[in-house]
Amino acid sequence: MKIALAQINPTVGDFAGNTKKILEYAARAEDIGAGLVVFPELAVCGYPPADLLEKAAFVARAEQAVVELAGWTGGAGRPAILCGTVMAAAANVGKQVRNVAALLTEGKVSFVQQKMLLPFYDVFDEQRYFEAGSEQTLTCVEGQPLAITICEDAWNDKGFWRRQMYPVDPVEGLMTQWEARKKELGGRWRIILNISASPYWMGKPQVRQSMLASIAERHGAYVAMVNQVGGNDSLVFDGSSVVIGPDGEVVARAASFAEDLVVFDTDAGDTEDGEAVAADAVADEVAELWDALVLGTRDYVRKCEFSKVLVGLSGGIDSALVAAIAVEALGAENVVGIGMPTEYSSLGSIQDARKLAKNLGVRFELLPIHDVFAQFQHVLQPLFAGTPFGLAEENLQPRIRGTLLMALSNKFGALVLTTGNKSEMSTGYCTLYGDMVGALAVIGDVMKTRVYALSRYVNRVKEIIPWATIEKPPSAELRPGQMDTDSLPPYEVLDPILEAYVERYCSAEQIAEEQGVDVGLVKSVLQLVERSEYKRQQAAPVLKVTKKSFGMGRRFPIAVKVQV
Amino acid sequence: MKIALAQINPTVGDFAGNTKKILEYAARAEDIGAGLVVFPELAVCGYPPADLLEKAAFVARAEQAVVELAGWTGGAGRPAILCGTVMAAAANVGKQVRNVAALLTEGKVSFVQQKMLLPFYDVFDEQRYFEAGSEQTLTCVEGQPLAITICEDAWNDKGFWRRQMYPVDPVEGLMTQWEARKKELGGRWRIILNISASPYWMGKPQVRQSMLASIAERHGAYVAMVNQVGGNDSLVFDGSSVVIGPDGEVVARAASFAEDLVVFDTDAGDTEDGEAVAADAVADEVAELWDALVLGTRDYVRKCEFSKVLVGLSGGIDSALVAAIAVEALGAENVVGIGMPTEYSSLGSIQDARKLAKNLGVRFELLPIHDVFAQFQHVLQPLFAGTPFGLAEENLQPRIRGTLLMALSNKFGALVLTTGNKSEMSTGYCTLYGDMVGALAVIGDVMKTRVYALSRYVNRVKEIIPWATIEKPPSAELRPGQMDTDSLPPYEVLDPILEAYVERYCSAEQIAEEQGVDVGLVKSVLQLVERSEYKRQQAAPVLKVTKKSFGMGRRFPIAVKVQV
Repeated sequence: MKIALAQINPTVGDFAGNTKKILEYAARAEDIGAGLVVFPELAVCGYPPADLLEKAAFVARAEQAVVELAGWTGGAGRPAILCGTVMAAAANVGKQVRNVAALLTEGKVSFVQQKMLLPFYDVFDEQRYFEAGSEQTLTCVEGQPLAITICEDAWNDKGFWRRQMYPVDPVEGLMTQWEARKKELGGRWRIILNISASPYWMGKPQVRQSMLASIAERHGAYVAMVNQVGGNDSLVFDGSSVVIGPDGEVVARAASFAEDLVVFDTDAGDTEDGEAVAADAVADEVAELWDALVLGTRDYVRKCEFSKVLVGLSGGIDSALVAAIAVEALGAENVVGIGMPTEYSSLGSIQDARKLAKNLGVRFELLPIHDVFAQFQHVLQPLFAGTPFGLAEENLQPRIRGTLLMALSNKFGALVLTTGNKSEMSTGYCTLYGDMVGALAVIGDVMKTRVYALSRYVNRVKEIIPWATIEKPPSAELRPGQMDTDSLPPYEVLDPILEAYVERYCSAEQIAEEQGVDVGLVKSVLQLVERSEYKRQQAAPVLKVTKKSFGMGRRFPIAVKVQV
Repeated sequence: MKIALAQINPTVGDFAGNTKKILEYAARAEDIGAGLVVFPELAVCGYPPADLLEKAAFVARAEQAVVELAGWTGGAGRPAILCGTVMAAAANVGKQVRNVAALLTEGKVSFVQQKMLLPFYDVFDEQRYFEAGSEQTLTCVEGQPLAITICEDAWNDKGFWRRQMYPVDPVEGLMTQWEARKKELGGRWRIILNISASPYWMGKPQVRQSMLASIAERHGAYVAMVNQVGGNDSLVFDGSSVVIGPDGEVVARAASFAEDLVVFDTDAGDTEDGEAVAADAVADEVAELWDALVLGTRDYVRKCEFSKVLVGLSGGIDSALVAAIAVEALGAENVVGIGMPTEYSSLGSIQDARKLAKNLGVRFELLPIHDVFAQFQHVLQPLFAGTPFGLAEENLQPRIRGTLLMALSNKFGALVLTTGNKSEMSTGYCTLYGDMVGALAVIGDVMKTRVYALSRYVNRVKEIIPWATIEKPPSAELRPGQMDTDSLPPYEVLDPILEAYVERYCSAEQIAEEQGVDVGLVKSVLQLVERSEYKRQQAAPVLKVTKKSFGMGRRFPIAVKVQV
């Protein structure tokens, strides 16, 4: 039997759109002669639906959509559909919804496997919504036995992980059943299907593939994993669906960061789609990161039903990179750059912003803010008189810029993209309601040192981001001669400290030792992180590209006493 | 034996401060001659610590604090301490932390009961952090057997709830053990202790008490519940600790919204502290709500280590109420009101704001923003030319005000209090980065109709909030003659629709029928709710006072297709 893996990009809550897409891919699978076409976890409603799952009408709409999909499989010669969806839970105790893989054959829901392991860490809240499954059974399509698992069900392999997060391993459970029924099932290949909505972070596709290879080898099985692709709010799903043979080698692989359909033949134990096998893992970390940010930006804007975006262009590297991402994601015609200089902006910065816009082919508007800034200071004069120019005056400038961008957004219906990076968001080196204004923090999970790497990547063929922007010392230009290094250690020192603290929860002492940095310096950085939590809780959604990004996956209180 | 219930207000992460407070209350219990003093859930580290629990150092500090507390109980004649805390989990599988009640006697940790039921709904994420307990045992202090439970452990009583959230009832489990050991334990009173961190919402103290009474009657036991008190970020804990006798009657009750110590005697089966019994449940819903908002505001400001706040005073009722709450919470000397009129502000509004400030005894400053507003429009002129005055121009005004308030905050180190109400936050009738600016959304969970009720409560003895403010038709005053009813139904119609949709998840059809309102009108309101999710995700923390408030307990995606 040919099994088609349909790596689709659903929109949360768009039942009509998702159903249509599923049927399009099912028709393509039919054309190829597939006996089964497999869709990602919660493909019917999109992942993650979050608290929409608490609305009975939402679950009912998903159930209705499944009836429609099942109907399609009733047509002559149609492949079966295996599809992730939600169903109401039957029991009178516990959570009222199930996360399931529904097998649709000959017009009916012929088999349902409930998700056994519900992740509840980082961005995952599944135990908030779902009742965990307690039973597993093998099923069969066209005489081919299949072991069906849903995402996390495959993430508790004791051969791969040092520490088990759950007391059971559903893959092992199904393989034990297979072994027990060996005679009855005959000599067919063991096939483990895994339908996933497994969000991206740097290195995750590689970890996921190694893990699946380890499972394939351990159980002597083919493992076919179909992952969702696309951006949904903060999360970017990379796709990278893959079939791995019992020898741990990749048999077929779908594209990363794009929809795709790959097919493998359970009889041949091999793939038919030459192209699919050729789809390599993304070349390197920076290219992969770029693709993730572009897809996340495109889908956020599109799924919010916008097409145009505004980017404040300071002449600095962060806004330049965000503009470049936006152009790749949405097209130059949908991006407008706004320069908003004060007297502290260098002439070079304005020239760099203008040059960037020209290189990208985007419209550029200059709105000097000197006079608004002066007028604000004039209004505040009765209260500020006699105080020195300081943080209050510095912050006025990004807040004026934020206000202008929002005015343009309100007037012309374009989303504002936020340009702050993770180093800034970590240390609070950013102005709430100022440069933090926007609908999406495109590079809010990208440390400054990676911002440089990405900018060089953008320029790999020719200069897009002016080299002057990349090479000048970073400055917020909020007072004469200001440099980032006035307030922060150099980014080469800062970023590894932040990465260790924010992403790996190391202590000050561990970081000092690991990085050979003075523990006092480390503590002063960690204090900055702790003291700026209040800013992050009012930040725009951040595209998650690391294991620990700011937002829903990182939940810290504000009014606390923290020892660093 | 006398058992003292110590209803304390810990600060999250303040191990030194919390330990000191626990020992102070333990010493008071010793003075009274108590054999046991009981503290709330997670009293050692404060509740909710959220992702701080993922840091090993945090758990280690809690364990260290418990050693210190246990040490105290080693002194001659000292009472035992029963105290909520976190401990590392022993097993090599699952979550790495336990939520426990630790019994400290004679210098040692003599007994540990792990929390059995971990809530994971609304604001609760406990399965994210904790491994659930699987074993329960009765313990004994001074010959008195005790059944120890932690918060949620008591919230699954099948006599009280229509639907069980968990398959087991830990209270029932312990009472079954008691029954089995009846002979051995003798004829002593059954005593169920429940240590809680049970956050407030309107009506919750009454529900909690009824539930505990139902348990007491069902099991023929005394139920003594010690609840945390105080504000921690969005959550306000009301305290309202209570002892209920086997007849379901209240034997002793602690204050609501204040620290307290109450004592009851297990031999007398009665209380000794006359005052405690007299501490009535709060008189009515509005008074209770007022107390919650005052405590939540006071603790947020204090635990953030601030003392002063700024409130933008428009002359409208929302900002007036917030200022009144701030004065009650922090004292008039710590509150500054700022009036920021434009040409659309009526003379009456400025007079009302000034009068309010005078009535409250707070400093008032007037910073007219006409000129900044004009200057912004001048800067935007090249792009806005030929477009009509609209939302962009309207929103400039609150954004200028937000910028001024933040400038004052930055200059003088005072927190800005946000003044928006729940009706506005629900419908998006508020300006992101404008009137939504601030550290805490004091009345963000209070519908407009309740804002009126609270304002009348403030004025119950004499006029504090000018009657003119209360009686004039509500207006944002962002364009000539603007009224809230230009954009929204009257609040008497709107608020019940919002309450049904936001707090009870009713469908448009259900709401239309329930309230006798046109379904088209209902749908247009629900669309406003859905379309403004992006604003709420960048809002300041909202003090939770209803079952469903905006913030961490309500998690909806932004880039979605929602059918209403």
